Amino acid sequence: MTAVADIAVVGLGVMGRNLAANLADHGVTVAGFDRDAGRVAAFADAVPRAVPCATLDALAPALKGPRAALMMVPAGPAVDELIAALAPRLAPGDILIDGGNSHFQDTRRRAAALQGTGIDYVGLGVSGGEEGARHGPSLMAGATAAASARIAPMLTAIAARTEAGEACFARVGPDGAGHFVKTLHNGIEYADMQLIAEAYHLLRHGAGLPLPRIAEAFAAWNAGELGSYLTEITVAILGRQDGETGQPMLDVILDAAGQKGTGGWASNTALDLGMPAPTIAEAVHARCLSALKEERVRAAMPRPAAPLPGTDGPDFVRAVGDALLGGRIAVYAQGFAVMNAARTAFGWDMDLAGVASVWRAGCIIRARLIGRILTALRRAPELPNLLLDPDIAALADGATSGWRRAVGTAVAGGVPVPAMASALAYWDGYRTERLWADMIQAQRDFFGAHGYRRTDRPGSFHTDWTAAS
Amino acid sequence: MTAVADIAVVGLGVMGRNLAANLADHGVTVAGFDRDAGRVAAFADAVPRAVPCATLDALAPALKGPRAALMMVPAGPAVDELIAALAPRLAPGDILIDGGNSHFQDTRRRAAALQGTGIDYVGLGVSGGEEGARHGPSLMAGATAAASARIAPMLTAIAARTEAGEACFARVGPDGAGHFVKTLHNGIEYADMQLIAEAYHLLRHGAGLPLPRIAEAFAAWNAGELGSYLTEITVAILGRQDGETGQPMLDVILDAAGQKGTGGWASNTALDLGMPAPTIAEAVHARCLSALKEERVRAAMPRPAAPLPGTDGPDFVRAVGDALLGGRIAVYAQGFAVMNAARTAFGWDMDLAGVASVWRAGCIIRARLIGRILTALRRAPELPNLLLDPDIAALADGATSGWRRAVGTAVAGGVPVPAMASALAYWDGYRTERLWADMIQAQRDFFGAHGYRRTDRPGSFHTDWTAAS
Repeated sequence: MTAVADIAVVGLGVMGRNLAANLADHGVTVAGFDRDAGRVAAFADAVPRAVPCATLDALAPALKGPRAALMMVPAGPAVDELIAALAPRLAPGDILIDGGNSHFQDTRRRAAALQGTGIDYVGLGVSGGEEGARHGPSLMAGATAAASARIAPMLTAIAARTEAGEACFARVGPDGAGHFVKTLHNGIEYADMQLIAEAYHLLRHGAGLPLPRIAEAFAAWNAGELGSYLTEITVAILGRQDGETGQPMLDVILDAAGQKGTGGWASNTALDLGMPAPTIAEAVHARCLSALKEERVRAAMPRPAAPLPGTDGPDFVRAVGDALLGGRIAVYAQGFAVMNAARTAFGWDMDLAGVASVWRAGCIIRARLIGRILTALRRAPELPNLLLDPDIAALADGATSGWRRAVGTAVAGGVPVPAMASALAYWDGYRTERLWADMIQAQRDFFGAHGYRRTDRPGSFHTDWTAAS
Repeated sequence: MTAVADIAVVGLGVMGRNLAANLADHGVTVAGFDRDAGRVAAFADAVPRAVPCATLDALAPALKGPRAALMMVPAGPAVDELIAALAPRLAPGDILIDGGNSHFQDTRRRAAALQGTGIDYVGLGVSGGEEGARHGPSLMAGATAAASARIAPMLTAIAARTEAGEACFARVGPDGAGHFVKTLHNGIEYADMQLIAEAYHLLRHGAGLPLPRIAEAFAAWNAGELGSYLTEITVAILGRQDGETGQPMLDVILDAAGQKGTGGWASNTALDLGMPAPTIAEAVHARCLSALKEERVRAAMPRPAAPLPGTDGPDFVRAVGDALLGGRIAVYAQGFAVMNAARTAFGWDMDLAGVASVWRAGCIIRARLIGRILTALRRAPELPNLLLDPDIAALADGATSGWRRAVGTAVAGGVPVPAMASALAYWDGYRTERLWADMIQAQRDFFGAHGYRRTDRPGSFHTDWTAAS
């Protein structure tokens, strides 16, 4: 076979096939392989200038050198098996890209294992789902600068574009950094979805508003600071009827949410780095709580009569919008703080402004707020927390009074708003000079002799708490 | 050497030496080995009838058969190395016990690896710190019934005892179950400590109460439903002065808490089982937030003037006590629900009443509440959640009004109470028949075609959200 292809896509499921078609749209010639011959045939039919390969042996000779191969297979052992099969067929200078949802620690391990072979390993975070893959995903690469420069033209061409036309592809750091950033993306996604769900629930079951009125509120929010993809689809969801029953879709859908694990990865990763991301954790646990539908039915209390006291009028709707905005700011702050901590922990030259830049379009969490975040990070690239940026802090400050009212009303009325409340506690706690942890350190030293630090001088100290003082 | 010893302790750090001394107090003859000869000598000096062993080779012949060896070494690779060294020196019918803080999945793996050798592997959760090890720990064994029966006399003798004289040793399930239960113990411990710290902080910085008044409140609580070891030591901590400066100890201790990871294990384990434990997660993240001391100082807002509105008088102190009680109930409910989920997930014959039984004394989270939990679990051993027990639900119900008031006051006044608020959202959410997750499932189906279940019939469904309805 003649070496005609610019890149290989290995794994031609819906994501792989869509990325291949997207590449072809931009003049890239794509060789494709899948163990499933039917998928190879579908790829050959759907993708212009496709170079279908029936075997891995046929793949390498079809590629122009230095070669680039993009793996689009399920995270886990399948990636390791594929690397073992592909690496011997590649040569020094070739680039092997994992575009799946791999755990960043696996990507670090694989990149390290390939060092010395001359093959450049790239962990590529891809967001935007099937639609994004086909017409413009957000792409976060963990790669050496050289490898990134080599693949940048192709990936820039297929990436989503901002309104100003900037492509949403960036090298965000080395080896595992791309998948790490994707993990935090998903954690933020979980938390933002939970905040939106709580806002909807509070307006409906707390304030007793009808769905069209709630859709109006979300539409108005979408036109302002809360503008985002998730806000936008919420408007569509709120307005949608079930074709069969004529009921609102939201009444037809069972209130038991699934979780695929990446939200949990984000929370765990935060803890491993010692960096708080409580609202991401709350959102994952909230999905688990929703899944206990039978138990909830068994335990159910009578629903308090809506409207709850204090929920009358447009003021309360504004307060809920403030809670959503404040919550979203806190959640992005948590996510970016975890990414910033990775800079030191893993010795990564992370480009957090680059992360904000590629999250402006194509990905699920694209939002107007990201413009402000990008500005903040360009001003101070190593900002430990977005809440330290004056512009972002002012935006959160402006939302705080309404945020307190929304959470306070829910707390008084028995409407659960775990993410809104968690985000508010984070916002308040982050700005509290003296927190409760003196008590925790005293307890740990009391029962476990863990020692504590003092406020007045350095060192580690222990008190014999059972002796008389 | 003559076979004179009833058990070997391998690893003679403070925990190992104290357990050995405890065993000796109860007439058990203990052989001891440590790679550090100094520790072996200290063991020989401190422990009556000690059989010090300079090498592992000397250890096995010193033990009466069938042999029992208790490993007290740091969790991780040291345990695997020790097993590899000990197993060839043991014989079928011997019992190898890991009394360290191993991850329960490691214990499962090790127990499985030793199957077929005839050696019985026991994962033993030990709680109570150094003091507990010396004078009466709480012991949770993951073991076969046969192995448990063999070691029960020794472990029952050294365990803590309830006021009624019942020993706090139980077989809670097979292989990893003991370490699993210890993990949840530690998660509950993290969350209960955080709740106490928030109650203290809210009374001090929200209500503006002086420390002696707060100590009085905790002392009164300790005499009632909130009676517990952690409540009791809080009273002592609140009353303690620094010998050097004469300042309250709490003002001398830096408000930056450490976390050793086991709280995070509990949160992760809950997510792996799909069972919510949000307040345990909040508590671990709250420690991480406290550790960001420098950032918090940089971001600090002016502290609102205490007393906050609505915090006057004994009513508010009662409300904070209610929040502490409600929060504690929610946290134990989360922990026991995770343990119950393990029954199905791992096929374990877990004895949750046995867990409650051994947590009545010796361990850090011993509390009056556990008596009620034990009663509930004896009534319904497979209760999926303690909140479904009428007696426990009634106790939480009675606390709910004050709990809402305490959290609402903190939310309005900018005092962070993440664990109290998280626990309240769990309590409210668990009793809500229709939660917010319809929105989350709609969003997931909208952008990722994940599908959803319907309220009116079984199956998985997908909507084309972008088409006209």
